[in-house]
Amino acid sequence: MRPVVKAIGTLGEFRLAQKIKLSTIAEALGVSTATVSLALRDSPLVADATRQRIKEHAREIGYIYNRRAASLRTSRSGIIGVVVHDIMNPFFAEILRSIETELDRSRQTFLLSNHYDQLEKQRTFIDTLLQLGADGVIMSPAIGTPPQDIRLVEENGLPTVLIARSVEGARVPVFRGDDAYGTGLATNHLISLGHTRIAMIGGTDQTSTGRDRYQGYVDAMGKAGLEIKPQWRFPGPRTKQAGFEIAGAFLALKDKPTAAVCWNDLVAIGLMNGIARAGLVPGVDISVTGYDDLEEAAIATPALTTVWNGQRDVGRRAARVLLDRLNGAEVNPAQELIKPELHVRQSTGKPVER
Amino acid sequence: MRPVVKAIGTLGEFRLAQKIKLSTIAEALGVSTATVSLALRDSPLVADATRQRIKEHAREIGYIYNRRAASLRTSRSGIIGVVVHDIMNPFFAEILRSIETELDRSRQTFLLSNHYDQLEKQRTFIDTLLQLGADGVIMSPAIGTPPQDIRLVEENGLPTVLIARSVEGARVPVFRGDDAYGTGLATNHLISLGHTRIAMIGGTDQTSTGRDRYQGYVDAMGKAGLEIKPQWRFPGPRTKQAGFEIAGAFLALKDKPTAAVCWNDLVAIGLMNGIARAGLVPGVDISVTGYDDLEEAAIATPALTTVWNGQRDVGRRAARVLLDRLNGAEVNPAQELIKPELHVRQSTGKPVER
Repeated sequence: MRPVVKAIGTLGEFRLAQKIKLSTIAEALGVSTATVSLALRDSPLVADATRQRIKEHAREIGYIYNRRAASLRTSRSGIIGVVVHDIMNPFFAEILRSIETELDRSRQTFLLSNHYDQLEKQRTFIDTLLQLGADGVIMSPAIGTPPQDIRLVEENGLPTVLIARSVEGARVPVFRGDDAYGTGLATNHLISLGHTRIAMIGGTDQTSTGRDRYQGYVDAMGKAGLEIKPQWRFPGPRTKQAGFEIAGAFLALKDKPTAAVCWNDLVAIGLMNGIARAGLVPGVDISVTGYDDLEEAAIATPALTTVWNGQRDVGRRAARVLLDRLNGAEVNPAQELIKPELHVRQSTGKPVER
Repeated sequence: MRPVVKAIGTLGEFRLAQKIKLSTIAEALGVSTATVSLALRDSPLVADATRQRIKEHAREIGYIYNRRAASLRTSRSGIIGVVVHDIMNPFFAEILRSIETELDRSRQTFLLSNHYDQLEKQRTFIDTLLQLGADGVIMSPAIGTPPQDIRLVEENGLPTVLIARSVEGARVPVFRGDDAYGTGLATNHLISLGHTRIAMIGGTDQTSTGRDRYQGYVDAMGKAGLEIKPQWRFPGPRTKQAGFEIAGAFLALKDKPTAAVCWNDLVAIGLMNGIARAGLVPGVDISVTGYDDLEEAAIATPALTTVWNGQRDVGRRAARVLLDRLNGAEVNPAQELIKPELHVRQSTGKPVER
């Protein structure tokens, strides 16, 4: 359990007995917590009349300003941590935006960190959250996160919700897309257009997402009775740059596939750029599918056929279930899979045999 | 000034007299602060022998675990806040990565937030930092940030460094590129290729960056004796989506420009996609320049001619000067302009008259 200090009395200039939060004052007066906070610090940013009203009300109900002292006596700090492996991927930016929209509604402050799939960085951030007395954490766990890391966080009193990736053995809610189903949709779409030689580019079997997306492709090929040659699998790429760089090796294959199922939209857009750089026309000479349906997919050249991955739903639902936990609700520590959808655009067509 | 409590004695289970930080123990034993922190919480993640060693050393030197209590008695929390207007722009992701690399070296924890150019959000985050006892803040100030907001932050004991944008009247260090010089480079490059009808697309005159980039274009056109028609200025776009959407209006101009100087790489790439969608070839029918030289610029179709904006330098130098301030150094509260460079690629060529 998180250490709790029950101190009644005076420490320096701070009384430590009351359980009053900024939001209590904010709600009573119909102003934002930020305004309350600024007013209590005599900020010139708050109009005189408002400042007076806030300070009077605070005095009346016995509020003492100082969250650091305050956090010694209440169990809620108003802080939620969010840690993901790659803020640079717009997939996460879209998730973060919907998390933030939810948290804003309940006046939580949102602190963000990037762990770059380094366990040490993830632990340092969580450690900081624990030390700050944060209320909860939403995380896309770093590759190799052991379930005891998640358990430790929970045991220290920090409710946790996972997004995008699951950790086997961690008994907390997980929100992610149904990845195997999603790449199945993309692969079946290519098969229905007449493609029989289909590669899969990008992703890693070190994550649940990577394993599931690959499995969806393998299953769809198998069901259609199509062979998968080992050289058609290009594991690794997760960025545009990596997708662009793999194009050379992909186009140099002897029995060149006519289509590629890509790990995500970034890899797909990078690959299409690489195909174009080689003088071929993506969507005509080679069909390409993405995954995520980023805002950018619709405006790519050609517009990208991709799998909508429900990132806004993931963010909204993760934030809501965390807030429910903070409000004392029992929640189901299970995985919720959001059903993806195929969005067909210009980057896929009938195979061109040469 | 930030309130400081000088309390000697015992508060609940915490002694409040010592000035010892996790990093003191970490350095003494040659382990990370995260390991020290986990060990002091009896985390199973730390090997038994290491945990024992750390706890013994901590006891010997009189360290008491609990940063919340600790922050009442020391002036350093080890936390640096970073707030920008748009994490989704890879320009910031590249800056953030270099800030983080610097802060990692001095074992600072990095808390990130997005203000989306909303003053209220920026204030709430800074307020949270103040209440957490953060050591400093690096910010790309929201549009409309009054200088007294920055002064208030400084007066509350939170050293501030600005990146990307300046705020007139705020006496703090600012690191940004020399934006007028940069768009001058791009515009002169187009002029030297023979273009005389050159548009400028994107950006806003509400920011120093927007004003300076527009001025650089205006000055270069003026020096070359070229006219600027009002309809050649498309203010606003800052994203790929917006660059893509403006293509229709741009291509429909009666005296259509043969080239466009774009506000940033995202707008330029979006515009090129829009030009391609209209059946024209960017880099041949219309020359396009970007700004920032994002990783993505080199792999775009066509590869983007753009202005390198020194974002890694901006991040590294901002972090260093903030750390210097924390270490008590006097720093010059002036603006440092990083000199941009033109990187010529495939998206610019001689004008094609129709």
